[in-house]
Amino acid sequence: MQGFVFHNPTKIVFGNGSSSQLSAHVTALGRKALLVYGQNSIKRSGLYDKIVSQLQEAGIAFVEHGGVKSNPSLTHAREGIAKARAEKVDFVIAVGGGSVIDEAKSIAAGTVAKDDVWRFYLGETKIEKALPLVTVLTLPATGSEMNGNAVITNDETNDKLGLASPYFYPQVSILDPLLTVTVPQRYTAASAVDIVSHLTESYFTNDGGWTPLQEYYVEGMVKTVMAAASRILQNPEDIEARSTLMWSATLGWNGLNVAGVGAFSMPCHALEHPISALYDIAHGAGLAIVTPAWLTAKAEEKAPKIARFAREIFAVQEENDRQAALAGIASLKNWYREIGAPLSFAEAGIAEPDIEELTRLTVKGAAIRKTPGLPEDFVRGVFLACM
Amino acid sequence: MQGFVFHNPTKIVFGNGSSSQLSAHVTALGRKALLVYGQNSIKRSGLYDKIVSQLQEAGIAFVEHGGVKSNPSLTHAREGIAKARAEKVDFVIAVGGGSVIDEAKSIAAGTVAKDDVWRFYLGETKIEKALPLVTVLTLPATGSEMNGNAVITNDETNDKLGLASPYFYPQVSILDPLLTVTVPQRYTAASAVDIVSHLTESYFTNDGGWTPLQEYYVEGMVKTVMAAASRILQNPEDIEARSTLMWSATLGWNGLNVAGVGAFSMPCHALEHPISALYDIAHGAGLAIVTPAWLTAKAEEKAPKIARFAREIFAVQEENDRQAALAGIASLKNWYREIGAPLSFAEAGIAEPDIEELTRLTVKGAAIRKTPGLPEDFVRGVFLACM
Repeated sequence: MQGFVFHNPTKIVFGNGSSSQLSAHVTALGRKALLVYGQNSIKRSGLYDKIVSQLQEAGIAFVEHGGVKSNPSLTHAREGIAKARAEKVDFVIAVGGGSVIDEAKSIAAGTVAKDDVWRFYLGETKIEKALPLVTVLTLPATGSEMNGNAVITNDETNDKLGLASPYFYPQVSILDPLLTVTVPQRYTAASAVDIVSHLTESYFTNDGGWTPLQEYYVEGMVKTVMAAASRILQNPEDIEARSTLMWSATLGWNGLNVAGVGAFSMPCHALEHPISALYDIAHGAGLAIVTPAWLTAKAEEKAPKIARFAREIFAVQEENDRQAALAGIASLKNWYREIGAPLSFAEAGIAEPDIEELTRLTVKGAAIRKTPGLPEDFVRGVFLACM
Repeated sequence: MQGFVFHNPTKIVFGNGSSSQLSAHVTALGRKALLVYGQNSIKRSGLYDKIVSQLQEAGIAFVEHGGVKSNPSLTHAREGIAKARAEKVDFVIAVGGGSVIDEAKSIAAGTVAKDDVWRFYLGETKIEKALPLVTVLTLPATGSEMNGNAVITNDETNDKLGLASPYFYPQVSILDPLLTVTVPQRYTAASAVDIVSHLTESYFTNDGGWTPLQEYYVEGMVKTVMAAASRILQNPEDIEARSTLMWSATLGWNGLNVAGVGAFSMPCHALEHPISALYDIAHGAGLAIVTPAWLTAKAEEKAPKIARFAREIFAVQEENDRQAALAGIASLKNWYREIGAPLSFAEAGIAEPDIEELTRLTVKGAAIRKTPGLPEDFVRGVFLACM
């Protein structure tokens, strides 16, 4: 186990109906908010009206910034920053999934920054403050509601980059499982894949030594996500399973699974980001495409750890580590198939992926984010195995 | 799964040598501190000098409040409060184990309170503020370094009561595993028992419904604690095992194992508190005495859950739940025996326990803390089974 600093000050208000408690958590933050949301689904569901009436009753003015896309764009975030500055808002409210929350984080930091927000992502300058952020989560997956991470896509260059900052932690996040019962199967599947990927990438790549605590944490959560996803696909209104998936998404990427594990990397996320930047595909769907290919390429090098995963998660009985690892990868693909996630570019409707551009963007992103283990030939090979 | 609010703002600075970083975390808190510690072990180990020289270099004045006992007393806490008020300290530094941190919490809140601190524990009034608290942990067990709980014993009445408050969270806790390599086997065993008890009491008593996430969390941590304790007993200087035990103690009682599980209770803690209040015995040793007796008394009522525990933790193969539960209780006793924890009053050196007084104090404490399931006859029966 290795040393670490862990500081996660986000307050979680979890429970059926907790989205009715928004006003109690924002009145102390100021008189005027920027309300960030995505497409029209929160208007159709009635959540928008519920939020607006709470703000009105609490006497909080707000400026709207809707239209966040599922891979939030730098251009749209810059528009939000301009709006927040012009209207002199005191804080930001994000209502939506990880994309909405991520863009809201960029806006909260960018509004009070001297520099353009993209320079933070390029690592050219550091975030030193941000407006307070409160979130109402509608799609559990990225863990953004309880971490200091955000991802954004530069729509001029197609660079999709992530960033971590202590100023990115929401002050309060409201997790109301009732808001998620209408999430369609395709998105639930993509969410489950994303949650499992957050948990397993660091598990497969860390150099922490003896870390049973973190391994059991990851394995227990992966088993939980698989059980919850299976229940939800049978009955989308299974609120216990929706609750469990929601809290798993948060705990799966709030820093605890990596606290103490030393250096780790997120190679599958690095391989996926260019896919959802170039093509209209959910991040989780992209992960289902690249993860088995990455694992197969690493099956020899990481045989003992992948074998442990196979035995713990899928009860693989094979004694030989390499054979067990390969059986585990096959079981993981079966699980993806069961929940309806795509297993190849073709299954995701990407008939002719631009392998060279995907490779170029991955290598470029890995250099900026310092993700090890992704040389050009290896990356090209992984993408070719996803055809 | 049930609704909950989770907000744990304590910053953890974890790692070998991290106790040398104390000054970096206190300079923003003020110019004068109350330094709370226990008996002379931190002077013998050199930790006291290390702390003092850091404070001197940082230009922070301090007033000493040493002599905290292993079950901290109200009288001593009141003395600390008087000292903190008289010297007008800005914040509190606790250097020690759970007892030192617990007393420091009472002092931090009591110093700025209008009422006497004991009234908080009696539930007659609520904590509304506290001085900032920084801790340097030397004995992992209670989780007090990352939670809002404290326990104190009224040495006039022998009432040992616990209390939870959002103002009890330390601002920063420094966890340096190197400080724990000199912890003797007896204390390590008591710590391991206490950590397992924090994890399992809520596991056995909650009404949360479908909570696989929390169950795996508990089971993985219990397996980890058992593995770490076993390594430490073989080699007290096994720093990986010391690190793992330290972080397990923190994560075992920082609120995550109970977030979402609904109502739960801590009956074994309620049964133990009078034992260590009346007799000179470590809290963890008292838990090893009462836990098997409590579990045996509940083996019928809670057969499915105790059986799950037996199968997950001890690989019990028995198919009948009640038989599996009893086999699990026997395995737990074996584990206590292996690590050198006492299994009865007699083994703990308490030749003639005052069963009636223990029963009276337990029932009284359970009434104050609203712990269900502890009627007088049941309590007496459990204590009689501990002879």
